[in-house]
Amino acid sequence: MKLWQKEGVSTAEQIERFTVGRDREMDLYLAPFDVLGNLAHAQMLETIGLLSSDELGMMTDELNVIFQKIQAGEFKIEDGVEDVHSQVELMLTRVLGDVGKKIHSGRSRNDQVLVDLKLFTRDRLWRVAEAVRTVFDRLVSRSEQHKNDLLPGYTHLQIAMPSSFGLWFGAYAEALADDMLTLQTAYRLANRNPLGSGAGYGSSFPLNRTLTTELLGFEGMHVNVVYAQMSRGKTEQTALTALAAVATTISRMAMDICLYNSQNFGFLVLPDALTTGSSIMPHKKNPDVAELLRAKTNKMKALPMEVTLVMSNLPSGYHRDMQLLKEILMPAFDEILDCLEIADFMLEHLQVKPNLLDDPKYDLLFSVERVNELVLQGVPFREAYRTVGKEIAEHTYNPPRELHHTHEGSIGNLGNDLIENAMNKAMTGFGAEKAQTAIRQLLKERID
Amino acid sequence: MKLWQKEGVSTAEQIERFTVGRDREMDLYLAPFDVLGNLAHAQMLETIGLLSSDELGMMTDELNVIFQKIQAGEFKIEDGVEDVHSQVELMLTRVLGDVGKKIHSGRSRNDQVLVDLKLFTRDRLWRVAEAVRTVFDRLVSRSEQHKNDLLPGYTHLQIAMPSSFGLWFGAYAEALADDMLTLQTAYRLANRNPLGSGAGYGSSFPLNRTLTTELLGFEGMHVNVVYAQMSRGKTEQTALTALAAVATTISRMAMDICLYNSQNFGFLVLPDALTTGSSIMPHKKNPDVAELLRAKTNKMKALPMEVTLVMSNLPSGYHRDMQLLKEILMPAFDEILDCLEIADFMLEHLQVKPNLLDDPKYDLLFSVERVNELVLQGVPFREAYRTVGKEIAEHTYNPPRELHHTHEGSIGNLGNDLIENAMNKAMTGFGAEKAQTAIRQLLKERID
Amino acid sequence: MKLWQKEGVSTAEQIERFTVGRDREMDLYLAPFDVLGNLAHAQMLETIGLLSSDELGMMTDELNVIFQKIQAGEFKIEDGVEDVHSQVELMLTRVLGDVGKKIHSGRSRNDQVLVDLKLFTRDRLWRVAEAVRTVFDRLVSRSEQHKNDLLPGYTHLQIAMPSSFGLWFGAYAEALADDMLTLQTAYRLANRNPLGSGAGYGSSFPLNRTLTTELLGFEGMHVNVVYAQMSRGKTEQTALTALAAVATTISRMAMDICLYNSQNFGFLVLPDALTTGSSIMPHKKNPDVAELLRAKTNKMKALPMEVTLVMSNLPSGYHRDMQLLKEILMPAFDEILDCLEIADFMLEHLQVKPNLLDDPKYDLLFSVERVNELVLQGVPFREAYRTVGKEIAEHTYNPPRELHHTHEGSIGNLGNDLIENAMNKAMTGFGAEKAQTAIRQLLKERID
Amino acid sequence: MKLWQKEGVSTAEQIERFTVGRDREMDLYLAPFDVLGNLAHAQMLETIGLLSSDELGMMTDELNVIFQKIQAGEFKIEDGVEDVHSQVELMLTRVLGDVGKKIHSGRSRNDQVLVDLKLFTRDRLWRVAEAVRTVFDRLVSRSEQHKNDLLPGYTHLQIAMPSSFGLWFGAYAEALADDMLTLQTAYRLANRNPLGSGAGYGSSFPLNRTLTTELLGFEGMHVNVVYAQMSRGKTEQTALTALAAVATTISRMAMDICLYNSQNFGFLVLPDALTTGSSIMPHKKNPDVAELLRAKTNKMKALPMEVTLVMSNLPSGYHRDMQLLKEILMPAFDEILDCLEIADFMLEHLQVKPNLLDDPKYDLLFSVERVNELVLQGVPFREAYRTVGKEIAEHTYNPPRELHHTHEGSIGNLGNDLIENAMNKAMTGFGAEKAQTAIRQLLKERID
Repeated sequence: MKLWQKEGVSTAEQIERFTVGRDREMDLYLAPFDVLGNLAHAQMLETIGLLSSDELGMMTDELNVIFQKIQAGEFKIEDGVEDVHSQVELMLTRVLGDVGKKIHSGRSRNDQVLVDLKLFTRDRLWRVAEAVRTVFDRLVSRSEQHKNDLLPGYTHLQIAMPSSFGLWFGAYAEALADDMLTLQTAYRLANRNPLGSGAGYGSSFPLNRTLTTELLGFEGMHVNVVYAQMSRGKTEQTALTALAAVATTISRMAMDICLYNSQNFGFLVLPDALTTGSSIMPHKKNPDVAELLRAKTNKMKALPMEVTLVMSNLPSGYHRDMQLLKEILMPAFDEILDCLEIADFMLEHLQVKPNLLDDPKYDLLFSVERVNELVLQGVPFREAYRTVGKEIAEHTYNPPRELHHTHEGSIGNLGNDLIENAMNKAMTGFGAEKAQTAIRQLLKERID
Repeated sequence: MKLWQKEGVSTAEQIERFTVGRDREMDLYLAPFDVLGNLAHAQMLETIGLLSSDELGMMTDELNVIFQKIQAGEFKIEDGVEDVHSQVELMLTRVLGDVGKKIHSGRSRNDQVLVDLKLFTRDRLWRVAEAVRTVFDRLVSRSEQHKNDLLPGYTHLQIAMPSSFGLWFGAYAEALADDMLTLQTAYRLANRNPLGSGAGYGSSFPLNRTLTTELLGFEGMHVNVVYAQMSRGKTEQTALTALAAVATTISRMAMDICLYNSQNFGFLVLPDALTTGSSIMPHKKNPDVAELLRAKTNKMKALPMEVTLVMSNLPSGYHRDMQLLKEILMPAFDEILDCLEIADFMLEHLQVKPNLLDDPKYDLLFSVERVNELVLQGVPFREAYRTVGKEIAEHTYNPPRELHHTHEGSIGNLGNDLIENAMNKAMTGFGAEKAQTAIRQLLKERID
Repeated sequence: MKLWQKEGVSTAEQIERFTVGRDREMDLYLAPFDVLGNLAHAQMLETIGLLSSDELGMMTDELNVIFQKIQAGEFKIEDGVEDVHSQVELMLTRVLGDVGKKIHSGRSRNDQVLVDLKLFTRDRLWRVAEAVRTVFDRLVSRSEQHKNDLLPGYTHLQIAMPSSFGLWFGAYAEALADDMLTLQTAYRLANRNPLGSGAGYGSSFPLNRTLTTELLGFEGMHVNVVYAQMSRGKTEQTALTALAAVATTISRMAMDICLYNSQNFGFLVLPDALTTGSSIMPHKKNPDVAELLRAKTNKMKALPMEVTLVMSNLPSGYHRDMQLLKEILMPAFDEILDCLEIADFMLEHLQVKPNLLDDPKYDLLFSVERVNELVLQGVPFREAYRTVGKEIAEHTYNPPRELHHTHEGSIGNLGNDLIENAMNKAMTGFGAEKAQTAIRQLLKERID
Repeated sequence: MKLWQKEGVSTAEQIERFTVGRDREMDLYLAPFDVLGNLAHAQMLETIGLLSSDELGMMTDELNVIFQKIQAGEFKIEDGVEDVHSQVELMLTRVLGDVGKKIHSGRSRNDQVLVDLKLFTRDRLWRVAEAVRTVFDRLVSRSEQHKNDLLPGYTHLQIAMPSSFGLWFGAYAEALADDMLTLQTAYRLANRNPLGSGAGYGSSFPLNRTLTTELLGFEGMHVNVVYAQMSRGKTEQTALTALAAVATTISRMAMDICLYNSQNFGFLVLPDALTTGSSIMPHKKNPDVAELLRAKTNKMKALPMEVTLVMSNLPSGYHRDMQLLKEILMPAFDEILDCLEIADFMLEHLQVKPNLLDDPKYDLLFSVERVNELVLQGVPFREAYRTVGKEIAEHTYNPPRELHHTHEGSIGNLGNDLIENAMNKAMTGFGAEKAQTAIRQLLKERID
């Protein structure tokens, strides 16, 4: 007896379920992008004589209708229809009959899936970039707000030197500015047109791939048709690597928050909305949301490895294995967007404890200041170091609490404007406007 | 504007959704095991005077009713109820009032979740073991059936020496027998009682943990209460490592099948149910199911790393991060069971091509045989090797197609009986019967 | 110009360097095991008539001489000799002439490498087991020593309930007892005889594989010759997974130590030998050794994934890729043994701070005790919980510092004897004595 | 007894060995970059009055002397000297006395290590870029050379449609052009100045970080000092991710080569320098070098995960754990450079088999051509598809071997010029010239 077999399910159904897996669910993400790909392909077909101008008009009208249904949440993949591409085609042919079928000329399912995935990934990476920007702005704003709120700085988890919340918030802002460069690269690798590559070996039709590249607002095309197919896996890998970079920044910040929220540090107060109590301990304020943020972002770091494992040592050419990449890639965008939103809310509402360094246990933070004070008075460094060590041992050490850090990026000169410039430049580098303009154009005549 | 924020969803709802995530879905897996844990805990409470005999009777009756509801698919976690544990408690107290609440004595949510997870994991690992056994039996049976069907043996993907389908099927059977040892270890690490460890620091109630260990049929207990909590992560890691070991065996077999199904090898014929055609190429029989089997099992190899990433560098003590382990662990069992079922179906139905070695391109496979022939006639090895090289070069080489492999595990002496013995011994080592007997006993009075 | 090409190095040399890589260095690990494999193979050849009794005697003598050279550190792989196997054969034939060459009958380089690797891995896993046992004993001893030294127990990094150093040390001891089961499985999968499987397709010689299995003290054999070859990768994976399990336990302990050594916790004092100062901050005691222990063990968690990446989607049969597994596997044993030794030293010398819970900031740890006190006085749990919350808020809460935890594994009843039993049972399960006896027997005549 | 303890080694030595590990070996990589960092820091110190003009001159002279020693291979870290930074300082003070010590003002060991690592990583990433370019040029050249040599194209490892060696070589060229973008991002993240960030909390000296940024030719600085420290881990991760991307491309190409070299495909002939024979099979040409290339590049895909595992959940601030990143990062550059060099040699020398598609088994490759032929004659696609299926079944199918693929990136129009443009643009984006000019300038006075 097979314990796990559902009664009354035939072999065919089981195989069907196994092969479809979560694919129909994933395909819904692609619906609007499939319409866009169809619109561009149809326009191109008309220019090479495979569609008449009238046929193109009818098709464009109908594709716009389908697009609006998708936007309105009224689109679904009907029972018995294999995938989103078949569903769109079916809706076309229901209305247009044989004309609808002509959309399939010069195209294979492979390059259709590829172009949908590229458009989807490009879209989502930009959304992530915008969400990262929101968190970045929050961090910069809190950094400025708390530039005078000092914080113990640690190395080796040992009390080291004075830091500030200005520095702490600002550090994560700058981390996100660097992550934006990684996102940009992923965006640019996704921003390539594979349409026209067929099943990975091109077509004998005289396709105009340069035209579809322009129509869909791609930065360029995957030129070589074998490579266009081979980019499957690489696109996903690069996108997920970029999400993992953002996740790495967020998870580290969440770790800091969990630690700083511990009574043994006590640097932060989290709002009630972000903590929970205990069913048996009446005094606790557990940072559950920060912990889940940490866990979710840590888990995301495995995503590039999942793609690697699916793709490793597959010879060139399409394999059905690649279908599985969709369920690794697509929900990851939702997940990171959720995490960024929660991170933003947390950063907005966490309260910073003032005057932390008044606690005598942090006096030693200023020992380097004291050493430098002596050095600037002309005492050689090594002697100054020994003197301060002796002062500490003999309890004559008097921490010089007045800080004079003036150089770029220090407590007294955070340099958030420089960091904002870097962020702006990184975002401009995406070239997202070209894509957006093209998409608006593709849909325009029907929308206006 | 936040592009990804759903309109009309409040902050509280968003945080709720973020923290709950897929947890309610995961919790349904735990429902029957939560009842079992409750039954054992209640019996124990009665022995230490925290429940009267009557109260225990009422509670036991009601828990059996709930268990039957779960088995009948009638159990659900109601809106506003936090988790499966609260739901079961709520159902108890609805019927029993204050008596129902007493089940919470001497227990924390933490050790309740832990014991449910242990019981669940133990149960699923045994199901996987049984499914692995089914595939194993299939492989042994096909190995015996095809012991005389020769197959080219490769090293470096170069034609090397004669092999057989008997050896090929049998090799994967023996691989699964070894994987069964890894499953056994995972089972034994899951087969430990954490109940009584509270939130990881024990209880001032005079609990009898030895009794609940017996009642739930555990092989032993997680003795140290701090360690009981710390086993979270390790249990999941070990279980997923075992699934990954099985997945590794299956994925390699699927790779062989995909390769052997290529026209350039042509060693196998896959049944129509397991292949698909192409939308543009009329001649193809694509091994989509084998490819998806390969991809799914390859993807599963990342699962232990996901656990590692969530747990790395968390100090000891519970953290909410661990909630996320559930969604890594639980669906993995469904996935591997699906894969094993499909693998079994594929192994049942794939046809082996006969007489493969009659193709002259495989003549060279027998060159080692020819060398050994000369050696056994007294020619020194090095000279024999040179002679055969010369015969090949001068086209006088005549492959000795009669094979006389007699030693253990060779073409002529597959040793499948030895492999079956190893498999039987590995399965006996689980000690699964003790667990099953205990569970039947816990539920018995109401079921009979 | 190739920037990275060393001048004066020919292409042949470069390719040689590329293919050899670190292999000769790795091969030195195998030398003693290669001799053992030769001794067993020679004895078996004599029983099937491929060596005369005299030839066996000469060969055995000479192999013992080589073994003693290896033990004395006088063995090396000479320039121009390909690998350790060729070196041993060369040393044999230098002395014995043609008789020496006969050792190659009925064997291929593949199964020779395999049997060496199995013997090496089996040996090293037992050494790791012994080292783990040493750390385990240390932990149990410190647990008993400090059973009355209380420690704050945390959940969510929030102060939660009273714990003790007895529990803390004991928890890691029990973790290692569980890891020992994982090591045992790895040992048992390594403890299988692949000799006689040739290049993965067996031999036409009438080998007696059962005999070599006995002579080398293996628990059993890899029966199927195709599987024997396929076990390459699985053996390494399983061994490294076991090391990663041990590493996971040690890294978490090191994280606790780093945290507890922070001034904000201050639970431990590390000996000077294990800390360093700062070049600019005179007051610091940085836990560098614990940090490196954490980093090294964390890094080791990636090792199983390296094996996975090398092996994924390789069809069955030997590929040269597998050579690379040696440099993943072999140094890992040295690394974990180093880590365990340092961990043991650290555990021996770290000092526990007494009376930690006298600090009023930990008063809240006892709130659950207070709740339970009321419950045992007959107050319903929910009311008791509310009462204590009120006491805390109104500053009338008086922590009941007297603990009465009596159940198995709790502060007052650590159960270290039970944990030691589990450890003893896990080590017995290796069956290491059989292996050791066989090896002594193989070498006996020369040693006595 | 500790089995693994070397006799006569004291505890202090063991701890020393444990903490130093491979660090001194790694530090040698940093030597030239440490001198460069010193040169820039010294110049800056002079501008803020902490060095006199004379002192700067002496220091600059001496640093140039040390640089030349390093270039000449005469530099080593002396016994008892902790690391490369101390060694350089020691050599300075030996000659300059107290003046030499002044180099340490306004700097901590942390930002000194950081700047060395940045300069090293920047340098090596550019070398990798150049090596990738060499392989790219080879691929483009072979693509052009073989644009008319047809090759079976596969999907699902099933014979699918005609491809060509022109497409196959070109596809990997384009893959490398995309990888160059990932390398560029890694380069840009490494091309940031951390000098002046001290131990992660800046300095009270009035450092001019903008000046050292210019002097060292950095694109910009890590502004925020806390972030400068936090970039440790991210820099390594991003660099290794880029190497892994290149490795992924190379490993897939190596897989194709191993497969195409199998007798069952037979598309390629590898030169003797790149194959080995078998000790027992006289007919084999094993592609060992391609296999090791595949294995080494596959193994490299784990490197980013190693960094992740070391860094995960470390709170902000320096931890000694980061030392271990050096031994993950540094040898990886040597490894990828070796792999690229071997790949280039292999691509130069592999021979392409001509006229592959004349084999009748590949006739079916042209079925899509036949379908399209009918479509262009006006037959509806579905009917054409059926017709060709019937022709094949009835053996009347006559493959139209004349191909007319004209669109961008197809067999008849490879578009290698477009791909070269993309590659050129990606390399220009590094901004490597600025760095090189600055370094020349820093060293100029002594070199000229």
